[in-house]
Amino acid sequence: MKIIRTVHEMQAEADTFRQAGKKIGLVPTMGYLHEGHLSLIRIARSRADIVAVSVFVNPTQFGPNEDLDKYPLDFERDERLAKESGADIIFYPSKKEMYPEHYLTYVNVEKITGILCGTSRPTHFRGVTTICTKLFLAVKPHFAVFGQKDAQQAVVIRRMVKDLNFDMEIIVGPIIREKDGLAMSSRNAYLSPEERQDALALNESLKLAKDIIAKGEKKTEIIIQTMQEHINSKAHTRIDYISIVHPDTLSPLNEIEDRVLIALAVFVGETRLIDNTKLEI
Amino acid sequence: MKIIRTVHEMQAEADTFRQAGKKIGLVPTMGYLHEGHLSLIRIARSRADIVAVSVFVNPTQFGPNEDLDKYPLDFERDERLAKESGADIIFYPSKKEMYPEHYLTYVNVEKITGILCGTSRPTHFRGVTTICTKLFLAVKPHFAVFGQKDAQQAVVIRRMVKDLNFDMEIIVGPIIREKDGLAMSSRNAYLSPEERQDALALNESLKLAKDIIAKGEKKTEIIIQTMQEHINSKAHTRIDYISIVHPDTLSPLNEIEDRVLIALAVFVGETRLIDNTKLEI
Repeated sequence: MKIIRTVHEMQAEADTFRQAGKKIGLVPTMGYLHEGHLSLIRIARSRADIVAVSVFVNPTQFGPNEDLDKYPLDFERDERLAKESGADIIFYPSKKEMYPEHYLTYVNVEKITGILCGTSRPTHFRGVTTICTKLFLAVKPHFAVFGQKDAQQAVVIRRMVKDLNFDMEIIVGPIIREKDGLAMSSRNAYLSPEERQDALALNESLKLAKDIIAKGEKKTEIIIQTMQEHINSKAHTRIDYISIVHPDTLSPLNEIEDRVLIALAVFVGETRLIDNTKLEI
Repeated sequence: MKIIRTVHEMQAEADTFRQAGKKIGLVPTMGYLHEGHLSLIRIARSRADIVAVSVFVNPTQFGPNEDLDKYPLDFERDERLAKESGADIIFYPSKKEMYPEHYLTYVNVEKITGILCGTSRPTHFRGVTTICTKLFLAVKPHFAVFGQKDAQQAVVIRRMVKDLNFDMEIIVGPIIREKDGLAMSSRNAYLSPEERQDALALNESLKLAKDIIAKGEKKTEIIIQTMQEHINSKAHTRIDYISIVHPDTLSPLNEIEDRVLIALAVFVGETRLIDNTKLEI
């Protein structure tokens, strides 16, 4: 496995692979890999000749009071795990390589980035779409794999790829959970034992929603209220949002339709966690 | 010469050329080609195996009260002129192909787009950088050629290409002028005979500036004042801006340096014209 640290070298490698007819798959990550990331690397492995994993803690997707400075990092561990999961290349640029002095360019997807997570994180998706554009142009992949855990991110990236004419596919891998149901996240490392326990309320509330929908409840307001009550019953939780939306457009729904996305963000202590489920009825 | 109307077909062609080791050059235009555009096509011809000319009147770079609706168009003439100048492909997408329903994504270069032409055209460069991103990803060129007439555009596009990691070169061709010195522009077609005469003041004022700089004047304020006086002496002119800036950063200068860009925009009647000159002392 090769570690590449500059855009120039990455592009030269990508050109060589493309010239030889090889299919390149990219898994963009911020490192501190967990089983969720590894599942995406395995998906890429099954579809590509060359699997590139990018590891870059992207400063532009963090807000001024967010956890950029304490975001966990362990490159040696990431290197080992990526290799074991089938990566051929780790693209591991420095912040200066990606955002040199005099950097001025941003990619923005409008409307669908101002709702859900975009309400409490107004510049987050602009950072995500900018870094993804930069990574796609550096790695020149035929496809990139993202996780369904970040449901809104997947919708936003798909929209951007289509809008800007990126000639590549976006593949979305399923949410990977701990045995007790907590969606895997690098941010779970921040949780105290009590918070870790209360964090189960996210997935539990999604299950509750599925149960009452299965029993015939159509009104999203009632479903959301049930979820709120469950989460608010835990001592360390503070709800950021709970929304039931169309899975492609992210438009809020008043009534359950054939396909819905139930998404939520909850602060558990100081840690903001997200989770979601897609229902096809 | 091939006319291609969809992004999908354009990308498939580009892939075939790239796979065969051919070098692709792109000349992005809004059509109504004049000698200025043709000079850029000839530059592309001298450096590329495959020359693609895009013809697309890009709505997102026009402001709400600008000339989108009356922008001149003559595709048959463009087709003939592009072919005669050495184009292999005209990429001629529809507005719906480039901006389909639910389109939401924009590329923005900050700071250097809010000065000079950006002051009176606040959304112009966002439209330019967005369409150029889309054209670059559709045509997959090894280089693109722009005209020095749009000096700020060339600086903005260079910044965007570097910032976003586009693996391509930006080449800037010199300003082409009518025999009497007026910089060629599709918008010259709007001018009445009297306005056409007054429009010479743009280039004349640039010459005046060069003369007094050659005589030792260093203060940009005085140079700009001399230019203003000349332009204001014409009946049909209204100055939008006259600026003397660093040619790479576009930062305004108080004193003449080794390298300067003198740029101006002037309304002649209803028609907004631009011109500039780069000095290396």
